[in-house]
Amino acid sequence: MTDLTELETPCLLLDLDRLERNLQRMREHCRSKGAQLRPHLKTAKSIDVARLAAAGAPMAVTVSTLQEADHFARAGYRDLLLATPVVPTKLARAARIMAETGADLILATDSAGVAAAAARFAQTQGIRLSLVIEVDCGEHRSGLPAGDVAAIVSLARTIHASPHLRLRGIMTHAGHSYGTDDVAAVAGIARAECGAAAAVATAIRGAGLPCEIVSVGSTPTVLHAPSFAGITEVRCGIYMFWDLSQASRHICGIDDIAVSVLASVISHSQAAPALILDAGALALSKDLGAQRYMPEAGYGLVCDPATATPLPGLAVATVHQEHGTVPIRDLAWFERLPVGSVVRVLPNHACITCAAYEAYTVVRGEQTVATWPRVNGW
Amino acid sequence: MTDLTELETPCLLLDLDRLERNLQRMREHCRSKGAQLRPHLKTAKSIDVARLAAAGAPMAVTVSTLQEADHFARAGYRDLLLATPVVPTKLARAARIMAETGADLILATDSAGVAAAAARFAQTQGIRLSLVIEVDCGEHRSGLPAGDVAAIVSLARTIHASPHLRLRGIMTHAGHSYGTDDVAAVAGIARAECGAAAAVATAIRGAGLPCEIVSVGSTPTVLHAPSFAGITEVRCGIYMFWDLSQASRHICGIDDIAVSVLASVISHSQAAPALILDAGALALSKDLGAQRYMPEAGYGLVCDPATATPLPGLAVATVHQEHGTVPIRDLAWFERLPVGSVVRVLPNHACITCAAYEAYTVVRGEQTVATWPRVNGW
Repeated sequence: MTDLTELETPCLLLDLDRLERNLQRMREHCRSKGAQLRPHLKTAKSIDVARLAAAGAPMAVTVSTLQEADHFARAGYRDLLLATPVVPTKLARAARIMAETGADLILATDSAGVAAAAARFAQTQGIRLSLVIEVDCGEHRSGLPAGDVAAIVSLARTIHASPHLRLRGIMTHAGHSYGTDDVAAVAGIARAECGAAAAVATAIRGAGLPCEIVSVGSTPTVLHAPSFAGITEVRCGIYMFWDLSQASRHICGIDDIAVSVLASVISHSQAAPALILDAGALALSKDLGAQRYMPEAGYGLVCDPATATPLPGLAVATVHQEHGTVPIRDLAWFERLPVGSVVRVLPNHACITCAAYEAYTVVRGEQTVATWPRVNGW
Repeated sequence: MTDLTELETPCLLLDLDRLERNLQRMREHCRSKGAQLRPHLKTAKSIDVARLAAAGAPMAVTVSTLQEADHFARAGYRDLLLATPVVPTKLARAARIMAETGADLILATDSAGVAAAAARFAQTQGIRLSLVIEVDCGEHRSGLPAGDVAAIVSLARTIHASPHLRLRGIMTHAGHSYGTDDVAAVAGIARAECGAAAAVATAIRGAGLPCEIVSVGSTPTVLHAPSFAGITEVRCGIYMFWDLSQASRHICGIDDIAVSVLASVISHSQAAPALILDAGALALSKDLGAQRYMPEAGYGLVCDPATATPLPGLAVATVHQEHGTVPIRDLAWFERLPVGSVVRVLPNHACITCAAYEAYTVVRGEQTVATWPRVNGW
């Protein structure tokens, strides 16, 4: 156990009390709504966090990269959904992961060309690949439009026709739920997301094709959906840690945020005037996702190191690669936070901030209790 | 040797022809100006790149983190300047690096408190630490104001008074040179930067104190300074790779940019309409440093994979964690870039983009020739 003030900075802290509370709340929410949770590990990228998220039970999980798929499959996870569209150059590694671990790695696509390439590849390898069709329920990123039932059923037929492919179902992502800070509007988006997914599944089954998985996701819509009728699973990940982007949209409270960057005050700029931290663009990221609804968040809110409570008016307003600038109005901050003192910075967007670190320094209160590795990259 | 189209994406490419040309130009520029180059390794973070930058000669280098210091010291570099202000919690590791490698790691500060703590620490350890004083020549980040000669000379006296500290000189960073896209204005900032540094050095020496190092930096000012009179060394790093932030300020050309992200087209969004790439916020970063002077750059310009030439009108306009959205006006792009095809994306800010990758895939033309590791983190 090390005291926080002795740690070398910048350093990624994970508050175990807050993490456990966040995980328990989402499990209880899903249980109360009758929803099967397939947690998304793209935020945490940590076996230790994944184990806590499942509360000990073996669990189906979602991943965003083959690197995550590889990592979690080797750690014993057997049911993984790679929720970004696959392309042919990634099939060899996907097959290797499955062969070496016995995991079922479900791949996503919205492309008949990719499905055909996957069928050819699987035939050559003498294997069978699981596929879900990605459906666009309004985000307009990847996925076939939910309204284009003919195209979706046609792709489903193509997949089902190959003895080397296994049509597992569909997935959709209501990422447009981040376009509002009104939870009533989020509930409407969630209703449309679930409605679209259920209707597409009905159409696929109506064509005599299997659709075992009907997967929806985005943390805001999972929390605010009125019902999950016709949905077999929900995907979300940021609920584990939360961040200012979520808090700015009223999806969580600031005191729910479980990750923070421990930073040192490395200079006092008299000219600005400002505190200069050793947490800049790399340590915090340049994500400003909270800006629309919480412009005062900057690149992160500066907090007391012991309590992780925001210090009034202090935020990282500017970042350079290794410097964060925290403007001050009251020069008394120079007394309160001398050069060499530490602060905690709550991240604007935790998924991006955490990706700069190889590990979490796990803390209870002001004491470190563990180091948990992350799996970054692709 | 692998063909680019066979690589798993996203993948960080380093174009060796462009890199070598960039390195040679800067060496020639510094030679012609009589400036001693202390290259900054915060962008490349690579021993292989550092060796090329030095053209075989042993070289003094600049680093931005203790992790870089450790890495380069263990690779044989003996004269390293850590150009971010040090704090007491970092002294133990700095001392360990020096003890284990024999390197002289020069530390920077603008704080009498840190200097006193460094003196106490060095005394306890029975070692001597090298310090430079950071001076603010107008950026208003870290550093004592160049005009406050009394404070600078006072700190110099404090450092020189300790038998366990070695006053090496001063450093300054004209980061405000990025506030313009007019190279004539950059030349003015460079003149002021060099003038301030030289004047401070004269004042320190006038007080009977040593000031062996007079270090200035920022790639734009190094390139456009009218003269380096009174300056002993120049620091810059991004010149090795260049990026759209630099091109937007007319500091380089777009065809000088040596790093790019190889990405796959993973979906065609009919609704947007857009190409969806597997290079998003993590693979490209969320840096928009080019936006002010080149708003069309978005999160990166999309290029032909073979030639790294921008494809007209194509840029990454939106990023999610693992998705990049490239709006298109002409649906013919769907024919030209089918799902599964690859593109190269020129980064907005190379220092930040590269930090997401563990290694460079080094290419000559369309063939890979090497893999060079990077040192990330702190």
